[in-house]
Amino acid sequence: MDEAGLNLADVAADARRRLDPTRWDYFAGGAGGERTARANEEAFARRWIVPRVLRGVGERDLEISLLGSAVSMPVLIAPTAFHRLAHPDGEVATARAAAEAGTVMVVSMAATRRVEEIAAAGGTPWFQLYPQPDLEFTTAVVRRAEAAGCRALVVTVDSPVFGRRDRDLRHGFVDLPPGMVCENMRDATGQVRDIEMDAGLSWERIAWLRGVTTLPILLKGVLHPADARLAVEHGVDGVLVSNHGGRQLDGALATLDALPAVVEAVAGRLPVLLDGGVRRGVDVLVALALGASAVLVGRPVLWGLAVGGAAGVRHVLELLRADLDGALALAGATRPGDLGVDLIAPAARP
Amino acid sequence: MDEAGLNLADVAADARRRLDPTRWDYFAGGAGGERTARANEEAFARRWIVPRVLRGVGERDLEISLLGSAVSMPVLIAPTAFHRLAHPDGEVATARAAAEAGTVMVVSMAATRRVEEIAAAGGTPWFQLYPQPDLEFTTAVVRRAEAAGCRALVVTVDSPVFGRRDRDLRHGFVDLPPGMVCENMRDATGQVRDIEMDAGLSWERIAWLRGVTTLPILLKGVLHPADARLAVEHGVDGVLVSNHGGRQLDGALATLDALPAVVEAVAGRLPVLLDGGVRRGVDVLVALALGASAVLVGRPVLWGLAVGGAAGVRHVLELLRADLDGALALAGATRPGDLGVDLIAPAARP
Amino acid sequence: MDEAGLNLADVAADARRRLDPTRWDYFAGGAGGERTARANEEAFARRWIVPRVLRGVGERDLEISLLGSAVSMPVLIAPTAFHRLAHPDGEVATARAAAEAGTVMVVSMAATRRVEEIAAAGGTPWFQLYPQPDLEFTTAVVRRAEAAGCRALVVTVDSPVFGRRDRDLRHGFVDLPPGMVCENMRDATGQVRDIEMDAGLSWERIAWLRGVTTLPILLKGVLHPADARLAVEHGVDGVLVSNHGGRQLDGALATLDALPAVVEAVAGRLPVLLDGGVRRGVDVLVALALGASAVLVGRPVLWGLAVGGAAGVRHVLELLRADLDGALALAGATRPGDLGVDLIAPAARP
Amino acid sequence: MDEAGLNLADVAADARRRLDPTRWDYFAGGAGGERTARANEEAFARRWIVPRVLRGVGERDLEISLLGSAVSMPVLIAPTAFHRLAHPDGEVATARAAAEAGTVMVVSMAATRRVEEIAAAGGTPWFQLYPQPDLEFTTAVVRRAEAAGCRALVVTVDSPVFGRRDRDLRHGFVDLPPGMVCENMRDATGQVRDIEMDAGLSWERIAWLRGVTTLPILLKGVLHPADARLAVEHGVDGVLVSNHGGRQLDGALATLDALPAVVEAVAGRLPVLLDGGVRRGVDVLVALALGASAVLVGRPVLWGLAVGGAAGVRHVLELLRADLDGALALAGATRPGDLGVDLIAPAARP
Repeated sequence: MDEAGLNLADVAADARRRLDPTRWDYFAGGAGGERTARANEEAFARRWIVPRVLRGVGERDLEISLLGSAVSMPVLIAPTAFHRLAHPDGEVATARAAAEAGTVMVVSMAATRRVEEIAAAGGTPWFQLYPQPDLEFTTAVVRRAEAAGCRALVVTVDSPVFGRRDRDLRHGFVDLPPGMVCENMRDATGQVRDIEMDAGLSWERIAWLRGVTTLPILLKGVLHPADARLAVEHGVDGVLVSNHGGRQLDGALATLDALPAVVEAVAGRLPVLLDGGVRRGVDVLVALALGASAVLVGRPVLWGLAVGGAAGVRHVLELLRADLDGALALAGATRPGDLGVDLIAPAARP
Repeated sequence: MDEAGLNLADVAADARRRLDPTRWDYFAGGAGGERTARANEEAFARRWIVPRVLRGVGERDLEISLLGSAVSMPVLIAPTAFHRLAHPDGEVATARAAAEAGTVMVVSMAATRRVEEIAAAGGTPWFQLYPQPDLEFTTAVVRRAEAAGCRALVVTVDSPVFGRRDRDLRHGFVDLPPGMVCENMRDATGQVRDIEMDAGLSWERIAWLRGVTTLPILLKGVLHPADARLAVEHGVDGVLVSNHGGRQLDGALATLDALPAVVEAVAGRLPVLLDGGVRRGVDVLVALALGASAVLVGRPVLWGLAVGGAAGVRHVLELLRADLDGALALAGATRPGDLGVDLIAPAARP
Repeated sequence: MDEAGLNLADVAADARRRLDPTRWDYFAGGAGGERTARANEEAFARRWIVPRVLRGVGERDLEISLLGSAVSMPVLIAPTAFHRLAHPDGEVATARAAAEAGTVMVVSMAATRRVEEIAAAGGTPWFQLYPQPDLEFTTAVVRRAEAAGCRALVVTVDSPVFGRRDRDLRHGFVDLPPGMVCENMRDATGQVRDIEMDAGLSWERIAWLRGVTTLPILLKGVLHPADARLAVEHGVDGVLVSNHGGRQLDGALATLDALPAVVEAVAGRLPVLLDGGVRRGVDVLVALALGASAVLVGRPVLWGLAVGGAAGVRHVLELLRADLDGALALAGATRPGDLGVDLIAPAARP
Repeated sequence: MDEAGLNLADVAADARRRLDPTRWDYFAGGAGGERTARANEEAFARRWIVPRVLRGVGERDLEISLLGSAVSMPVLIAPTAFHRLAHPDGEVATARAAAEAGTVMVVSMAATRRVEEIAAAGGTPWFQLYPQPDLEFTTAVVRRAEAAGCRALVVTVDSPVFGRRDRDLRHGFVDLPPGMVCENMRDATGQVRDIEMDAGLSWERIAWLRGVTTLPILLKGVLHPADARLAVEHGVDGVLVSNHGGRQLDGALATLDALPAVVEAVAGRLPVLLDGGVRRGVDVLVALALGASAVLVGRPVLWGLAVGGAAGVRHVLELLRADLDGALALAGATRPGDLGVDLIAPAARP
């Protein structure tokens, strides 16, 4: 499937050709001057690997266990909005690819397909939640995700307000095209609600949510080690080091640069995941060597989706898998758990 | 008012189109190779924020108290010369925008409108002073500013000689156009004096000035911590970390880089302000997290003025206010006083 | 012979003009995003020399002793594949140049000429080995190299799998042109075997190889100091700090950056060689000052070969020799052994 | 005289237009990849000044005392070869400008005018010497410089061999044009000798030279602190931190980066001078703040000479003087001796 792109940069270029600029920019853009969006990628380019040799790496296995489930590789699909802007099949195509690849898709609350359809495509989806000020409605959304078979909640905590994205403002991109809505924001009457960013969101709501569901809860958007410690104290099940792909606070630290302090603060009591800037298998390796349990990819999945629907997403996932597998071997490791900080050159360690 | 520009870079581009190159370059240029002018902006791009989450930031308030007055946000208008070069209304337009925005305009001694007219536009202006060798005349200028209602004196101390600015020399920019003068440099006979840079200026003159007026005195142009300590000892009311927008000593340290040592030297005994390179709300946040009480913006105000007079300046101020408000929320803060150095990534701290 | 190029950049440009893009890219390319390939060169550009003066450097001598043999300068020829892609004479031309220059050619296992012919061209070749899973065949290859007169084995340990090189994939470069084969991969029946990357390769195989031959054994591809210590413990005769010219693990540390920790780990018990990024005589000087006993050059030799066969390779070697000789004098040294770490500026030391 | 250039970059551009490329490149070029030539300038761009204010700088005086003579400013003229390639008047024009400016010209041993004529143009020239293997001839050259009135010897110690400069090799620049010779290399018979680079040069020759003349001796080309200490021990009168403008060892440390360790090693026992990369008055200020007693400028003088003969050189010197004078005032200093390391931002200190 080489005509689908030898690497993710190829896939991105192909997607850009296919998407109209408003949609491309909606996916590609970041907040403000987009320096955090760039920094996420650049942070990986500053890390250098000191590989081990002669370690007998013939039998490699990328599978990890996360929140009690087996995942075929430490690369998951980050929640991103509006997949139907990339491909008519929308999130259902993404879910099919995730299922085929044996990895987890985190379904966005801003999905343009119903969570039931998405879950029916197979796999073990998780559900991303912006807790809404209307607690009853929030509960209803959680119940619906549970009923559809979602295995975890990924609660976004980095969005008390909506990030200002100049590309969208320039395009006048405000509403989804006719016929496309956030299908999982329908209330009991079938009306589609707007997703509200709740500036008042606080740890109390996390405690409340903990009481609402027995699903594992991950907090998405933790960058500060003090918040990571609070996450442990509040009994959540994991933290996701994320700056929302640079789409919320421009100037926020690159996720890879934030990772080590969060890992140190958590001290093994919770799994730490990361998203932002992962574009090569070796990026996955670096994040894992610095303490992440897994990474999530967002934009690359949308590129694959735009290029080829489910097959395109699958291609993106398999490129990353093959690349990571090779990097693992070349670094002298046979499984994700073998990777440690001594593989990262000291000058490039945080 | 989006056609007025989504961000300050838009406003700058628009202003550049409208202004003739001599005037644009007069405002944009710096001394020598202009590396300090560039460094002021670049210093912000080297700082990264580690935001806090889940802090309940629904009720934000940008107001600060400065020298006993309330200011609606920690963004003031820096003193800059010759506003009539940007717009026929000159400093009166700027003052009107400041008043509407509830912030302080520092009126330049090189204003092209009379301080009485400027103050009459509303608001609580401060007055910038180059102390002149003629003490009697200096006293008269101070009295005039007092009488007009100015609430503080901002004494420029970084200009014992005039910075050499190659752009102005190339354009042969020496005199203001006919009909435009420094209206506040008229002596008792109505003659307009030239502003003299007094190379002999020393702490004794500050002590003298302290005896001349009861207005609060801020020293503008302090970069060295030893001078900040001397400022405290001489009983002034605040220091403004400034390198004159890179227009005096090319090679001078970027203001954001100078800020922490000044803050440490002052140790809370005086408010520390900063100007130079502030172009986004997040820049304000960074300066405040590193210890500034407020920042001042110079060139952006002139851009707004050139684009749309008072409305253009207002647009610039409201862009910064909205941007700062969002950044505050996204960093987990509700008011300027919440911002501390732990929000700045350690590697990027000074 | 100035029309052959004043420096290696000239030779590279000339070679690029002469070679078809598939072959140029095969030689020039690296794995993945090629950042390790670039980093190898850039690492030299970050080191600065603090030369000594007035040391009476009239009688310089570049000769070194390596594994018991005299070599006319501390610049050897790295093993690279497929010399007939660069010039019809292939590795025989390279060997002739090496012999004339009094230096060592490391013959690649992927040579397109027979090792017997190559050795017959003169000089003291070494032989590079990818240990094959078929031990009997591996033994046969070693015996053949011994019989041809090779003086050492250079065992590549950085290639448990084959690096993914996008340039080759884009060109569809898979097989050698008709009539060109890996001549030293013929088995007893005359059939040419493929070179296998053995992912299971481990220290046991090194121990086994140590029992197979009395030739000195160098391990090529050591970057991690822990592996350097293991190399000492396993009784090999030298280590070659290499990342395979950036062709295996993209993201691997630049060799010059890896060198000091390896030198420290080995603590003089073995010679430490380096390849990757050497393009000027002063690069050789820097590597030696940081503890290398000698360096090897790969791509530059191929450039010379493409431009002028044996004469072209000779030109490359003599450019480096003259450049190193001058650099030695200008740094106040008369022989390689005079070079120490105090010649490298502290800020640029690792 | 603004049409002569507002700054040295203007003068350089003008000179480049006037000179044929072979001559421009002879002056502009460096050894090898020219990274040391670039680094000399870039080292200044990495230093930032923390100016002092309110220090009463009305009465400034740039004069310094050097080797017992008064010099009107801490900017001297570095020895450079072949001034007649830049202007028909050659070194006599340069000397006239130096005399008018009240500064020292260091006459190159490769001057194209006779030292007697040069000295007759006024001022207090010093003489640069490449000690020749023929001691008798060397003595004769020294005697001739003494007789002409030179006040010091500047002995070049960084040139045991001739730096390889690709630009000159490309142009085939080997010999001076007909009618132009190194006038001060004539022997007793009037024959012009070639200047030999003596690879055997050592401290013994410095001791010998010390016995030959009573003139002050400066060593030009000291970068290593160990050599600076040896210079003190050998009783010379000063050291000049220089890398020959990047024309000898490409990769040598930038002079500004080498300065602090040399200053520390010398510990005030000798004056330390610096050349290389000085292009602005603020560069002079930085070098002095880091411990230099004075700086020398080479290429800028040749640019001025090419543009306007003696007047062009004078313009270059007066640009630097005015620029330094302004920088001194703006940094809060009245004389070179006021400048200390606390004016340099800590992060940018070596």
